[in-house]
Amino acid sequence: MSQDLHINGGRLLKRLMEMAQIGATPKGGVCRVALSDEDQAGQDLFIQWCQGAGCTITVDQIGNIFARRAGSDNDLPAVMAGSHLDSHLDSQPTGGKYDGVYGVLAALEAIETLNDEGISTSHPVEIVSWTNEEGTRFAPGLTGSGVYAGVFDLEDGLSRADKNGLTLGEELQRIGYAGEAPVGSRPVKAVFEIHIEQGPILEAEGVTIGVVSGVQGMRWYDLIFEGQEAHAGPTPMEHRRDPVAGAIRVLQRIYQLNEKHAPEGRATFGDFKVEPGSPNTVPGRLTVTLDYRHPQAAVLEAVDREMRSIMESECRAVGIEGRVEEIWHLPPISFAPECMSAVQRAADKLGYPSMEMISGAGHDAMYLAQIVPAGMIFVPCENGLSHNELENAQPEDLIAGGDVLLHAILELTEAKAD
Amino acid sequence: MSQDLHINGGRLLKRLMEMAQIGATPKGGVCRVALSDEDQAGQDLFIQWCQGAGCTITVDQIGNIFARRAGSDNDLPAVMAGSHLDSHLDSQPTGGKYDGVYGVLAALEAIETLNDEGISTSHPVEIVSWTNEEGTRFAPGLTGSGVYAGVFDLEDGLSRADKNGLTLGEELQRIGYAGEAPVGSRPVKAVFEIHIEQGPILEAEGVTIGVVSGVQGMRWYDLIFEGQEAHAGPTPMEHRRDPVAGAIRVLQRIYQLNEKHAPEGRATFGDFKVEPGSPNTVPGRLTVTLDYRHPQAAVLEAVDREMRSIMESECRAVGIEGRVEEIWHLPPISFAPECMSAVQRAADKLGYPSMEMISGAGHDAMYLAQIVPAGMIFVPCENGLSHNELENAQPEDLIAGGDVLLHAILELTEAKAD
Repeated sequence: MSQDLHINGGRLLKRLMEMAQIGATPKGGVCRVALSDEDQAGQDLFIQWCQGAGCTITVDQIGNIFARRAGSDNDLPAVMAGSHLDSHLDSQPTGGKYDGVYGVLAALEAIETLNDEGISTSHPVEIVSWTNEEGTRFAPGLTGSGVYAGVFDLEDGLSRADKNGLTLGEELQRIGYAGEAPVGSRPVKAVFEIHIEQGPILEAEGVTIGVVSGVQGMRWYDLIFEGQEAHAGPTPMEHRRDPVAGAIRVLQRIYQLNEKHAPEGRATFGDFKVEPGSPNTVPGRLTVTLDYRHPQAAVLEAVDREMRSIMESECRAVGIEGRVEEIWHLPPISFAPECMSAVQRAADKLGYPSMEMISGAGHDAMYLAQIVPAGMIFVPCENGLSHNELENAQPEDLIAGGDVLLHAILELTEAKAD
Repeated sequence: MSQDLHINGGRLLKRLMEMAQIGATPKGGVCRVALSDEDQAGQDLFIQWCQGAGCTITVDQIGNIFARRAGSDNDLPAVMAGSHLDSHLDSQPTGGKYDGVYGVLAALEAIETLNDEGISTSHPVEIVSWTNEEGTRFAPGLTGSGVYAGVFDLEDGLSRADKNGLTLGEELQRIGYAGEAPVGSRPVKAVFEIHIEQGPILEAEGVTIGVVSGVQGMRWYDLIFEGQEAHAGPTPMEHRRDPVAGAIRVLQRIYQLNEKHAPEGRATFGDFKVEPGSPNTVPGRLTVTLDYRHPQAAVLEAVDREMRSIMESECRAVGIEGRVEEIWHLPPISFAPECMSAVQRAADKLGYPSMEMISGAGHDAMYLAQIVPAGMIFVPCENGLSHNELENAQPEDLIAGGDVLLHAILELTEAKAD
């Protein structure tokens, strides 16, 4: 297909802004938590747009929405593209306007462009909006894609409860998105997900398109430092078993260990829980979360081993107990070579600068990669900020990404102009 | 007075156990938060015992209770002894059986012994129970003694609200302890407070009596590390402004700085507040409390200066902002030489091993020292544990302390046997 074929960028941007009105926050963010009234309103609007574009809507039992544009041969498996419409609201007040939504609306824009240009495809094209990607309300996230890919059982997904005890299944019923289609029953040739990078690399490199080759492996740990609670005043330093003294030695050494695995290795200590947590009490226990990521399984294994040995030796050195609990782990994921090539060729043909990169964050495409050929496209994200009301992306980058998605879909659907 | 004069140790222990039944917790602790129903019941019992010992009761406007045994010359100022009956319940489930209570009941036991032995004193003797020492419910603590000593205004003390919005003044009314006596109106010659050490030194040294020479100066700070919140996955290490990376360097160097001021210097990082506090988010801000104590004002000043300079240089080194906020400070306090000598002579006469020491914690006597000659006596505390259900002390040490308090009072009241 000609490199002169472009999406209607104005329409894409307009729809992004219209969708961002649903759950809009004063500072420019979006609060559209999974299966809330706002999420329902967002999905209603999305479906209305899809129906306007002539798509057939199917909702499955976990609430995933599929909007299908028929191919010239409907026995062929569909080429799918999409992401999620829920926003992240965790400790942060709100999420941004682009995380997830952009992937759904860029897929819709691809179909609109096919319609506008009178292009037919051999394979059907489907837009997908996955349920509860963020996991903000019902943890963990990636529920719709996870159930679809068989990572979680349907019952497991439906039974997840929010902090008020409402289950995901009940809330799907309430907002009218408990569909009847069996989950995972659709024949799929490939799936694409376009997303803002949520990191600073593309912006720093001055590159428009990230051809995502895989997702980092991630391991989540609780590092637990057990000492002895003591009154800050009367307890001399040499009588203390102070978990803080051990923790800072361990954290310092884990940062140093991670430097050996630069630049891919990422060590994050995101949460601290201190007990009892009183200014004039030496804590009895300090728990620090470690989120460690690297694209290579062997490095993750090596860091796991070394980190445990650091915990043991440093805690012993200060006379406290150290314990490591692994909370969750996900091996590195590689995306399908045919999807990466389709994205790469689309970027090259359109003349957008591109680079291969690894995704640091988890995405729906990560679970889908376990059952179908999957690929991801990244576009730059201002200052690398995401999950934040200040999340922003340049209009020209959003449009360029939409163009690349369109052309990747065109390649895999074997499109031809009428 | 003869070294053969001893308190009735069995009665003291029996009363300690009886008082510990009020608000008793399953694990042997006590939950008797200031101005609760349990605190009221504890004060009622205390007053009943004092009246049984022939004392006259006065309650002042901040709820301090004074139980007076007349002297032979009631124009002379009273020698006062006491502490507090409220227990500490903060992040910990409960306080222990001895913190505070022991000081009140040992003073009562001294008067009981004077009665039993038919001893009259020139100066009156008064037992005192100070309101809201712990500050658990109405922060900050040391309210009764603080208002008495003019550190806080009466209105300030009465208007302190608990987390439900109930004020200290309202709660005094409710439990019937809003007295009429003007605060601070009693002529006092000296005040003693006997207390468990709340630290491990006496136990470690095998010494029974601590002759307390003063209270460490204390400075409370918030160390605020400001970086940039970022997604843990997609944000490379070199793009991060990670407050944790700065904090561990600063904490390490403050521990090292404190080693220069060993053994008296005490640095405690008791509470950590992380924002947003999510395992997969590089924190935007980390706040760590520093409680720094030392008996010398010059050292406190030097540590303050060096700590600020460490904050600045280490935070700059990792590209984050560091800020120091001083929350509270209390200069070092020295107790009155005449009170210390009375305690020292009593211990020597009775043959109890003693040592001079500094109090690491704040006590009511600390504020009183600002207006009258004040002194403190410490007895050993098992494993240095306090503010804890496991708080414990050896019966023989509690009795020895009571004996020393009795003889110190006898000296200052110019007692004579009838």
